[in-house]
Amino acid sequence: MKKIKVNLDDRSYDILIGQGVLSSLNINSTKAVIITNTTIAKLYQKKMAPLFNSKAKCEWIIIPDGEKYKTLATVEKIYHELIRLKSDRKTTLIALGGGVVGDITGFVAATFLRGVDFIQIPTTLLSQVDSSVGGKTGVDLKEGKNLIGAFYQPKAVYIDTDFLKTLPKRELLCGMAEVIKYGLLWDGFFFDYLEKNRNKILSLDHTAIEKIIAHSCSIKAEIVSKDEKESGLRSLLNLGHTVGHAIETLGGYSALLHGEAVSIGMVYAASLSEKRGLIQKEDVERIKNVLNQYGLPVQWPSYNKKKVEALLMNDKKVSNSVVTYVLLKKIGRAVLHPLKPSAISVFFK
Amino acid sequence: MKKIKVNLDDRSYDILIGQGVLSSLNINSTKAVIITNTTIAKLYQKKMAPLFNSKAKCEWIIIPDGEKYKTLATVEKIYHELIRLKSDRKTTLIALGGGVVGDITGFVAATFLRGVDFIQIPTTLLSQVDSSVGGKTGVDLKEGKNLIGAFYQPKAVYIDTDFLKTLPKRELLCGMAEVIKYGLLWDGFFFDYLEKNRNKILSLDHTAIEKIIAHSCSIKAEIVSKDEKESGLRSLLNLGHTVGHAIETLGGYSALLHGEAVSIGMVYAASLSEKRGLIQKEDVERIKNVLNQYGLPVQWPSYNKKKVEALLMNDKKVSNSVVTYVLLKKIGRAVLHPLKPSAISVFFK
Repeated sequence: MKKIKVNLDDRSYDILIGQGVLSSLNINSTKAVIITNTTIAKLYQKKMAPLFNSKAKCEWIIIPDGEKYKTLATVEKIYHELIRLKSDRKTTLIALGGGVVGDITGFVAATFLRGVDFIQIPTTLLSQVDSSVGGKTGVDLKEGKNLIGAFYQPKAVYIDTDFLKTLPKRELLCGMAEVIKYGLLWDGFFFDYLEKNRNKILSLDHTAIEKIIAHSCSIKAEIVSKDEKESGLRSLLNLGHTVGHAIETLGGYSALLHGEAVSIGMVYAASLSEKRGLIQKEDVERIKNVLNQYGLPVQWPSYNKKKVEALLMNDKKVSNSVVTYVLLKKIGRAVLHPLKPSAISVFFK
Repeated sequence: MKKIKVNLDDRSYDILIGQGVLSSLNINSTKAVIITNTTIAKLYQKKMAPLFNSKAKCEWIIIPDGEKYKTLATVEKIYHELIRLKSDRKTTLIALGGGVVGDITGFVAATFLRGVDFIQIPTTLLSQVDSSVGGKTGVDLKEGKNLIGAFYQPKAVYIDTDFLKTLPKRELLCGMAEVIKYGLLWDGFFFDYLEKNRNKILSLDHTAIEKIIAHSCSIKAEIVSKDEKESGLRSLLNLGHTVGHAIETLGGYSALLHGEAVSIGMVYAASLSEKRGLIQKEDVERIKNVLNQYGLPVQWPSYNKKKVEALLMNDKKVSNSVVTYVLLKKIGRAVLHPLKPSAISVFFK
């Protein structure tokens, strides 16, 4: 088991990572409400209920599975359920699921009765290495992803690698997109490790999987501790995401999964970095190859340029019509680069 | 002009109070969106647009007037409008209106793009002395008031006493309920002043009105600085509000205005305090008389006891089925008192 601390003064918390780590779950209240989706409930509710019930009086709220339910309508349904279950300010919410469940539960925790405690138990690789850590919570609007939300830190994150055994392959690969992102933006040696250990990782070798999750979380924890509210450094974590979000939206959140959109977004960032003389053509090819190795898409989809530009303008990172892109100075080192949305043209030659 | 500082580390801000104080309005961004209601827009939009436009590029979002519109549906409409107006993270929101406009705008500011700056310009006495200060934002659910919200501080509060000239008398009196509350819970001398200066105050004598607003704000600022998130001291500000919210909800937010419900709630708190041997019968009569002097109701409405109890159980302050009532130890000194909701019986003999 590995333990990583996210240092944020009175909002600090631990991330516990390993096989069977849930047995050490600590709920700091007498009552808890577990929020999960239909898929996870089917696989785990019966099996895990005794464990949860041994820690606190637990109730369950089950929402439909999928990004398209990450809406204010779902949030409102959860509020009503919480009241029906007589939840109060001392009730702990537990997010049991992937990024959608974590983001919604975090937003509900931030806003229900002006804030209640919550714990993250991410069940997908993507949420384990990314969304469960750092306190970004939110929901989508029809105009774009995560346009509504709050910075609200969990009380703890429990990452049990056993969940990955039931995770569909395509979603595991999506998680790898975020893992590769950490190597690209922060740690060239980590990128080398990922390049050389594909088989071990994708076969869920226990040591390798725990290592890459823990290393990803420690990079994220370090960045978040230094810049919780994303006034600078934290923006680096958006590598591949600005363009990624736009093409994810154009695909209706279903043509491409988040990690796949981010993979294409990272190829875009690498190409733009090369065009601006920051990295070499060989670096771009190497990045594409590694993403390819992990079964991730690297080809730009056939979306209309104007539509992508318009969506980029709706991005949260836009200010005064300038998009802050994250580019690469080398593999392992990202930099912020403010550009007009039309910089997207690099993909439309 | 009076200036009061709310001390909250990096979230500190000033409250500026006086006639014409808006001329010193400072918007720290190039773009602002003013959120107001139909009533205020009719009275002030044309008149004030040049002032706002001289400070930043300003847009307006106008919502219907009334507590019944303090809903998630209104919040969602505002989100869509903000996107249509191409608002970004550097856009400042300005709440121009009473408590409903302030609470909704604050909640939108806390959650739009995970948080943007906002300024409070309260136009009613009630919002000037209470809701505009302290960072409580929120909306109602059908199950009860302010069940959804966030703690989110404004960047500044501008209290222009000129707005009170167009405020309907009944609403002015509602504001006085909160002013009287500060005397009751914190400052016996202030209560004496209110008892002796009714005519000056209700005729909007400039010196008297500025004095009571500034003193109310300074009491609130002191309490909020010591306990922003309401873990103890700040709960004292709920004097009259626990029961007040319940009877306000039973009246469908229209039979009784907020200040009127709080007035009855304070009489209830005083009666319960007497019953528990904390204050004397004469104190209760004196409190009733002062509220009466200011045209506020002091008689318990004919609501069903079980319904009131059920609503008290939904209150945010409930924990483990115990309601934390605010009682009076003397005029000018409130104390917290945990009781079962059935303590309400004192009114049903």
